[in-house]
Amino acid sequence: MSTTLERIRNGVDTDTLFATLDAVEAQPELGTFQFRVTNRWIDGAHNRSTIKDFYAAGGEDTSRAGAFDLDAGEPAILIGSDTGPNPAEYLLHALAACLTTSLVYVAAARRVRLTRVESRLEGDMDVRGALGLSDEVRNGFEQIRVSFVVEGDAPPEKLRELVERAKARSAVYDMVTNGVAVHVGVDA
Amino acid sequence: MSTTLERIRNGVDTDTLFATLDAVEAQPELGTFQFRVTNRWIDGAHNRSTIKDFYAAGGEDTSRAGAFDLDAGEPAILIGSDTGPNPAEYLLHALAACLTTSLVYVAAARRVRLTRVESRLEGDMDVRGALGLSDEVRNGFEQIRVSFVVEGDAPPEKLRELVERAKARSAVYDMVTNGVAVHVGVDA
Repeated sequence: MSTTLERIRNGVDTDTLFATLDAVEAQPELGTFQFRVTNRWIDGAHNRSTIKDFYAAGGEDTSRAGAFDLDAGEPAILIGSDTGPNPAEYLLHALAACLTTSLVYVAAARRVRLTRVESRLEGDMDVRGALGLSDEVRNGFEQIRVSFVVEGDAPPEKLRELVERAKARSAVYDMVTNGVAVHVGVDA
Repeated sequence: MSTTLERIRNGVDTDTLFATLDAVEAQPELGTFQFRVTNRWIDGAHNRSTIKDFYAAGGEDTSRAGAFDLDAGEPAILIGSDTGPNPAEYLLHALAACLTTSLVYVAAARRVRLTRVESRLEGDMDVRGALGLSDEVRNGFEQIRVSFVVEGDAPPEKLRELVERAKARSAVYDMVTNGVAVHVGVDA
């Protein structure tokens, strides 16, 4: 087996991964990141976020060639015209993506080759909360269920342990399950 | 002013909005929704969610013509190749989109015409948490700051009050600030 095959596992360059861990451990201030989004209302339920710059490891990161644009919307039943996924669906996607990436990185670090990672997420919402019709139901999902299918060159109990480790390290899983302080300022 | 101009405010069909509110108030079970995402790992930090079907108002909603695909990734400094925004950035987008749509709908219902809604969101993260290098810092954002610029045909204090009302009704703001129970199952 070539050195390259050893080094790249699950598409993750493990040399770079371990070098990053060593660097941040040696200089904890390199761990300070800031992510940013700017959003602009277009019409009705249609708004668009632009994502590019961020702060990382002691300075502004300029590695991204271009910006990412994300369009949000609502389906017809929520008075939109389907200009994009709705915000609650974007939150489910953020959670799926973060758990999956955490799992893939954890597996790479622990020398497990994954061959398949798929997930299905469901969120139950009583929209009477967000519509202002009831103060007895919350605005957001009452509960989120995530179902993973994971395959790789390790026994099932090891794969399940990696998912547990991914939950324990995922940034979005932490935020969605524990909540984050949000400060909203308005220039009007 | 024509009836159409009165009826469509901020791109929102207010007749439909009020009819929806009346229908759900009369039949609370119509408020039961379920949103879903399926996600598939591609390689490294690259994974893709597909979003289409959902349950709404007593049945499966089939109004969407096609599915939405969302690609996630990580920048080079987080061992990815920028195949999409990262999961934490998607969470910021979900929050921006939900607060904005809530504001636009609340304003439409209260007869305020908006001419501009823009926001900038910042999330501070010490990545030592997610990298597993420190148990003293959390995995997710320590704090999120949202800065809105809102313009419309109402005095500044009224516009600020509408933002407060949007916060009080936003599904994603509720979930991000208060947290949601997440159940993770694994088929391995």
